[in-house]
Amino acid sequence: MNKRILLTLFVGLAGLTNLSAQKTAKLPVNKTAVLSSVDEHTSELIDLSDKIWEAAEIALKENVSAKALADYAEAQGFTVERGVAEMPTAFIASYGSGKPIIGIMGEYDALPGLSQKAVPEKSPLIDGAGGHGCGHNLFGPGSLGAAVAIKELIEQGKLKGTVRFYGTPAEEAIGGKIYMARAGLFDDLDACFDWHPDAENKASTQSSQAMIEVTVEFFGQAAHAAADPWNGRSALDGVEAFVNGLNMFREHMKPSVRIHYIIEKGGEAPNIVPDYARVGLYVRDATRKGMMEVYERVQQIGEGAALVAGVTNKMTITSGYHEQLPNIAGANVLYKNMQLVGPISYTPEELEFAKGIQRSVKMEEKGLDGSIGGIDPTAEFPTGGSTDVADISWITPEISLVATTAPIGTPWHSWAVVACGGMSIGHKGMAFAAKSLALTMVDLFENESIRKAMRDEFLEKRGDYVYKAILPDGPPPVK
Amino acid sequence: MNKRILLTLFVGLAGLTNLSAQKTAKLPVNKTAVLSSVDEHTSELIDLSDKIWEAAEIALKENVSAKALADYAEAQGFTVERGVAEMPTAFIASYGSGKPIIGIMGEYDALPGLSQKAVPEKSPLIDGAGGHGCGHNLFGPGSLGAAVAIKELIEQGKLKGTVRFYGTPAEEAIGGKIYMARAGLFDDLDACFDWHPDAENKASTQSSQAMIEVTVEFFGQAAHAAADPWNGRSALDGVEAFVNGLNMFREHMKPSVRIHYIIEKGGEAPNIVPDYARVGLYVRDATRKGMMEVYERVQQIGEGAALVAGVTNKMTITSGYHEQLPNIAGANVLYKNMQLVGPISYTPEELEFAKGIQRSVKMEEKGLDGSIGGIDPTAEFPTGGSTDVADISWITPEISLVATTAPIGTPWHSWAVVACGGMSIGHKGMAFAAKSLALTMVDLFENESIRKAMRDEFLEKRGDYVYKAILPDGPPPVK
Amino acid sequence: MNKRILLTLFVGLAGLTNLSAQKTAKLPVNKTAVLSSVDEHTSELIDLSDKIWEAAEIALKENVSAKALADYAEAQGFTVERGVAEMPTAFIASYGSGKPIIGIMGEYDALPGLSQKAVPEKSPLIDGAGGHGCGHNLFGPGSLGAAVAIKELIEQGKLKGTVRFYGTPAEEAIGGKIYMARAGLFDDLDACFDWHPDAENKASTQSSQAMIEVTVEFFGQAAHAAADPWNGRSALDGVEAFVNGLNMFREHMKPSVRIHYIIEKGGEAPNIVPDYARVGLYVRDATRKGMMEVYERVQQIGEGAALVAGVTNKMTITSGYHEQLPNIAGANVLYKNMQLVGPISYTPEELEFAKGIQRSVKMEEKGLDGSIGGIDPTAEFPTGGSTDVADISWITPEISLVATTAPIGTPWHSWAVVACGGMSIGHKGMAFAAKSLALTMVDLFENESIRKAMRDEFLEKRGDYVYKAILPDGPPPVK
Amino acid sequence: MNKRILLTLFVGLAGLTNLSAQKTAKLPVNKTAVLSSVDEHTSELIDLSDKIWEAAEIALKENVSAKALADYAEAQGFTVERGVAEMPTAFIASYGSGKPIIGIMGEYDALPGLSQKAVPEKSPLIDGAGGHGCGHNLFGPGSLGAAVAIKELIEQGKLKGTVRFYGTPAEEAIGGKIYMARAGLFDDLDACFDWHPDAENKASTQSSQAMIEVTVEFFGQAAHAAADPWNGRSALDGVEAFVNGLNMFREHMKPSVRIHYIIEKGGEAPNIVPDYARVGLYVRDATRKGMMEVYERVQQIGEGAALVAGVTNKMTITSGYHEQLPNIAGANVLYKNMQLVGPISYTPEELEFAKGIQRSVKMEEKGLDGSIGGIDPTAEFPTGGSTDVADISWITPEISLVATTAPIGTPWHSWAVVACGGMSIGHKGMAFAAKSLALTMVDLFENESIRKAMRDEFLEKRGDYVYKAILPDGPPPVK
Repeated sequence: MNKRILLTLFVGLAGLTNLSAQKTAKLPVNKTAVLSSVDEHTSELIDLSDKIWEAAEIALKENVSAKALADYAEAQGFTVERGVAEMPTAFIASYGSGKPIIGIMGEYDALPGLSQKAVPEKSPLIDGAGGHGCGHNLFGPGSLGAAVAIKELIEQGKLKGTVRFYGTPAEEAIGGKIYMARAGLFDDLDACFDWHPDAENKASTQSSQAMIEVTVEFFGQAAHAAADPWNGRSALDGVEAFVNGLNMFREHMKPSVRIHYIIEKGGEAPNIVPDYARVGLYVRDATRKGMMEVYERVQQIGEGAALVAGVTNKMTITSGYHEQLPNIAGANVLYKNMQLVGPISYTPEELEFAKGIQRSVKMEEKGLDGSIGGIDPTAEFPTGGSTDVADISWITPEISLVATTAPIGTPWHSWAVVACGGMSIGHKGMAFAAKSLALTMVDLFENESIRKAMRDEFLEKRGDYVYKAILPDGPPPVK
Repeated sequence: MNKRILLTLFVGLAGLTNLSAQKTAKLPVNKTAVLSSVDEHTSELIDLSDKIWEAAEIALKENVSAKALADYAEAQGFTVERGVAEMPTAFIASYGSGKPIIGIMGEYDALPGLSQKAVPEKSPLIDGAGGHGCGHNLFGPGSLGAAVAIKELIEQGKLKGTVRFYGTPAEEAIGGKIYMARAGLFDDLDACFDWHPDAENKASTQSSQAMIEVTVEFFGQAAHAAADPWNGRSALDGVEAFVNGLNMFREHMKPSVRIHYIIEKGGEAPNIVPDYARVGLYVRDATRKGMMEVYERVQQIGEGAALVAGVTNKMTITSGYHEQLPNIAGANVLYKNMQLVGPISYTPEELEFAKGIQRSVKMEEKGLDGSIGGIDPTAEFPTGGSTDVADISWITPEISLVATTAPIGTPWHSWAVVACGGMSIGHKGMAFAAKSLALTMVDLFENESIRKAMRDEFLEKRGDYVYKAILPDGPPPVK
Repeated sequence: MNKRILLTLFVGLAGLTNLSAQKTAKLPVNKTAVLSSVDEHTSELIDLSDKIWEAAEIALKENVSAKALADYAEAQGFTVERGVAEMPTAFIASYGSGKPIIGIMGEYDALPGLSQKAVPEKSPLIDGAGGHGCGHNLFGPGSLGAAVAIKELIEQGKLKGTVRFYGTPAEEAIGGKIYMARAGLFDDLDACFDWHPDAENKASTQSSQAMIEVTVEFFGQAAHAAADPWNGRSALDGVEAFVNGLNMFREHMKPSVRIHYIIEKGGEAPNIVPDYARVGLYVRDATRKGMMEVYERVQQIGEGAALVAGVTNKMTITSGYHEQLPNIAGANVLYKNMQLVGPISYTPEELEFAKGIQRSVKMEEKGLDGSIGGIDPTAEFPTGGSTDVADISWITPEISLVATTAPIGTPWHSWAVVACGGMSIGHKGMAFAAKSLALTMVDLFENESIRKAMRDEFLEKRGDYVYKAILPDGPPPVK
Repeated sequence: MNKRILLTLFVGLAGLTNLSAQKTAKLPVNKTAVLSSVDEHTSELIDLSDKIWEAAEIALKENVSAKALADYAEAQGFTVERGVAEMPTAFIASYGSGKPIIGIMGEYDALPGLSQKAVPEKSPLIDGAGGHGCGHNLFGPGSLGAAVAIKELIEQGKLKGTVRFYGTPAEEAIGGKIYMARAGLFDDLDACFDWHPDAENKASTQSSQAMIEVTVEFFGQAAHAAADPWNGRSALDGVEAFVNGLNMFREHMKPSVRIHYIIEKGGEAPNIVPDYARVGLYVRDATRKGMMEVYERVQQIGEGAALVAGVTNKMTITSGYHEQLPNIAGANVLYKNMQLVGPISYTPEELEFAKGIQRSVKMEEKGLDGSIGGIDPTAEFPTGGSTDVADISWITPEISLVATTAPIGTPWHSWAVVACGGMSIGHKGMAFAAKSLALTMVDLFENESIRKAMRDEFLEKRGDYVYKAILPDGPPPVK
């Protein structure tokens, strides 16, 4: 979830008692079965999660992590295809045959520089190494746990169809799912699931922003900056004119638009007029249409900035994210199943750990929110943020869950998320997710009507648009 | 002298005694005659100067001033053509016939907002009215005084040829001489003279900067700045991108270049996205060639700025000044004649007036410099400044004098210059100029060899360039 | 309505038949009386409107207009106090005594440069003169017509209390109502009314943006821009650094904020380093609190820009507008009375006139919308725009009406509004407004419960804030 | 010579015949002896040069290079002190005792990324490795060769006093000589020598620019750039305001000033508001005084930019270079000795090699300039460029030579310089330098009057200034 923002609502901690025991008594057998399955496999899932947490491999380098998950799936009886979509760490694990085909996605890439022990104050495990600051060590095993539970029912003949686990790498960098989507790997699905670690439990009904990542390069002419600067044309001048132009443009953008940038390369040495400079740029809007209109102006600004500086300009879209199509029909089914699982309860030690985290990051000591958040109406505009899950939502109806794996108010992409992901708070969220998702998958496998309602909504929202990945030609940038 | 800069050297005050009395004893008769002529007409010239000083008419409005000078010339026997070059306040007063034809120029336009009494502290004569902050009230009568002296010799048959006084308006605004030059009014001259009020006496051997005046317009799309700024395209954004581009460009200009601008129009009201904005821009360099190379980049910057802001851009050269071709042969002749006239001496009251001025403007109380400054070698690059006299120097050999009419260190284009121009300090400088110029004109009328030396130098410096005024098509912008 | 934006909804034209005839049959006598009163006075109101339309006097110059209204009120029996709040064209016309005291406001200032005949294509009445591009020629007489109807009932003893017409000048420039509010002139009201010309009929339930107008000045050091620019400090550099800083700041402003500016003064002449430069700036947000937080950063940017340019900076708030407190209780009463009046119907000629306007401004030819628009929920954030009516809404419960006086989609503050305001389309809107407001005033005079509901809502929304006009010390800037 | 600019005059190739053979016949014995000494040691010096050329060690990493030179000096009988001024690769090799004490400096650091074979087209020796793009492989051995020749005369009792070779590292990075100067290592010298590879032979009479290297840091507040950019304060905004301010400031700098910068750090990732950004900045002027006045404004601009962006700013001077005091008395002595050595002659193969270089870099094929350039008057302002040799010129009279080691027009700090430095063109220049310097050193050892003339000039130019290195406190940034 590299660009998605977490709406961490500071909900009071309601009942912490896990009501699942009583409730399951009255559950249909398949639902009872998947809950039991997750319980049975939980220690294995925790082992997988901890292994990935320790490996802490960044995008496209998730060799140990992808192998651990793929091997586990294989050991459970799944058919595994590794290295799909030209990415060595992408894979698909399938079980069953025929329709319906229900997918579920798992991520497992870490973030650079966030290495951290499972303690409530900042303390790197290995200095300078990566860390699971977005909780993806939980994401992969949690989703796989749900898939395994479904696989067992298919194996037992209690469900018909195919369950498919997508090992989706590099969410934090290039949007691995987009390459997998371009390869057509989601095309035959009836529906797809994902979840994400968060500070609350919620069935998502919100969209996300469409986004493109753009590399903006300027090419000038070097010269000695003291001796004959008049013979030089500064590529950095091009960058300055460009970003200044972007900032003026902000007045004339709709409030739903976001543009932000860094200067990745701003010259070699002060005594040389820079002949090369580069900006890293993201452009977002609530819709691809709005975003591309903004991008047209951005390109014009780049062209103009080059003229202003007397240099040349090149813009390259390196990746593009669709806006998410929320599926309310699906979210409602998920919400009911989350209630069946019941809120997550925490031990005094876990609550103390959470408050320790909150003290360390100077947030209010509100502890953890294990409750089940309600269904919100879809906002007119999404909050600022994007995700490659959104691309899948244009191919098949998508159900998204967030589950609590960190204390209220935790800054995301931080050591604090790493710490919780390596101990029981994270593990509990993972189990909650696995159960909620597995229950909902049971509903989808069993009920054509649910699938149809979801598809009808999907078709209406998608319209006659045919999904096309926003990617440069050629394979993914695997080194 | 709206853009020329005065090299006010802080020369010590050498002998203040006017040695002309003794020296004239040994002078050739024609030289003695012109000195006497100026002395005889001095009170009339002072009356003319004071009339123009009081009228203080700004560029192209010099009706009283031009009429006073033209009427006086006519009364002296000159043939006067008024309203030349499509400017009502431009005129030519001629006397004599045949070759050589020697010209001398006089200016008489004032500056807005500089009204001042002839007192050594700031005190407007008429609030908000104009004032002769560049001393042009002295310039016109001084030059005419020299022309009258020559006319008398022609009339008496002691000199042969034609003397021509050019009444050149609007130096401070549009460069009236450039329009007169475009009209071919200087084409048949053998040489031309000018002088300018200053804080020292010197035969000029320096160049001036080539310069163009440019109007830079941006055209956008208005919109309500609070309600739907996204429907607007700000012309002011274009201006901001443009001037920002100019400022970045400064690093890549040679040290001889000058670019400066104001924002003449920056929007109508804050709640309207500006659909029109305008910059007033000057571009200068030591040569027209360098200047035009710079201007090419400036045009590119304008084009780029328009793209950056999503607006359109238009640049118009409204006036252009050549760089001055100094004529060293001529300057040397002038220098000798200045020595014949001798330094200007001042009374204790005048020196006290000068120090009063210096106290008021917080300069050192150095008094006045009436000495004759020496001949300087031509500098590689001129100091920053331009003049429409320079255009004439590409058509005919030009001799330029500066004469002391204000205290050492006086800030030009200020009330202090106005004050001195309305009393004896200014009058003395005017008489010094009239005498120095008349003496030098005698030399030129009498000596073909001097004219030839000047022309040879002129031709060599000019090369095969054929003068072309840098002006927009059409008549001068007289209301 | 100089900064308010019109949400011109393109509602289809429903029934054009004016149902008021039938409906009035069943109306209470006081309501019937006010409708009759407006009908009786309509031709006088149209005369007043046309007189103000022709005078087209801009802010603080509304001498003819204010006098016409005040004289008419006096002639009708009102007690008139002229020149209130130190503005010669502000006045209050009162009738009756004691409680309740109900106010109604009328504007009458025109906009510069919008002179236009009452024809459907752009054609100035007097070149360069003002025009009623915001329809204030209708606003004043319309409100006064309602006040007269109420006055007649008080006179007849059918209503008890005081009716007060506020002649509020200079809405387009300084916010005349704010000065009147500061003077305490609205303090004893039980409620106040206003209406505004528009392209639809609606009881307003929306807020408006809080706004301050700020003059931002920079002071530098002049120098000759070619000769010694290193001795100058450019005030315009300060402006450039400032506006560049504002544009960078836009990334870090909430979407509800608006900042916009013009450069009012950007130097005297290109060859002088500018020693003075000035920006005209508006800062707005949904609330005064948010706005003032933004203004703190803006002040910091000004301070920083001055340091960047080596100059000094001064910021002055010249006027401030509160955000509007909508009064839903009041709007609901108004809405019912608008339905009693019924939609405005148009003749084929009026519809053709409207379409002519639409052709001229290149809008869709949708004609006129005379229907009664429904009650909208108050939006989270107001659309961009501000009004001095909002200040009154913090002093007393305020009811705001908009009434159709121009075709669907008419660009406001344009010649098109002027054209319609000078003929029957405008007159019909004025009569509709006068009737709707008079009917609602009857309800307020008669029903303590309505007044109480409005006041309760007002008090809750206002909280314990004590209104304080955001104005510089001293009298209004009446020349 | 990392920032010095080479005035590569395109002098025609005069006589290529080396006249030294005939001339030495008439030379004093000591001069004959040093010429012979250099000839005898030439092959060793070439070996040293080639070894350093191959090692190509960048600043402060010159372990092999420094050791080779120091070992050679030791082997020749010098007393060597290694690791002086806290830099492991700085050393001093001394011979003799008592006064006079004459120093000579040698550099030996390479430039990163310029690896190149000794061939006339671009072809790296080792991809990505360093290369002697400034010819320092020749500089060190050439100077040491001169010192050895002097040492032999002292050893033989033919000269009295002390000769001292300074191994000065890190010229291209931190200005190693400045640290050595701060340590007082040059304080007891009577005079000092240096030379530098170039494209012409010349006794230098020019100054160089004073310069400071400044690190400019901005510190902001990170935030998610799409989700809550209003909670962030962008350090990059600070950088943008700062460099924009610098560019506006250019209009107000004297033509002798140079300011140039790169953006070293401009954010981490586009979706994070940058909380840290950094500029690398050089400020130069003809004098330290002018430079520090400019730096005061630069600091003010940094402070202002921080306010504009709402962030904080820190500036650190990391190194400072004095302007060079040319010693004309010394240059004249050097010039005479260069004439004794005579022009450098080249073989047809060397000329072809040179033209091959010129073809490769698209310069005119003018070959090599081995002639002896004349003595130029000291220019009012130095061309743009700085050197750490200049610091020594404020401690003791300094004689600077440039000698041809590369073709006419060679771009410095390029592969082309590397190529020539690894073959006979470079070697010939080195020998020329060694001889010219050794001859001049003989003059200084022998003539108190020369030393006195040089010292008198030095003292007059230095005035009462006491040298103070412009450096941060603490040791040099080794490792």
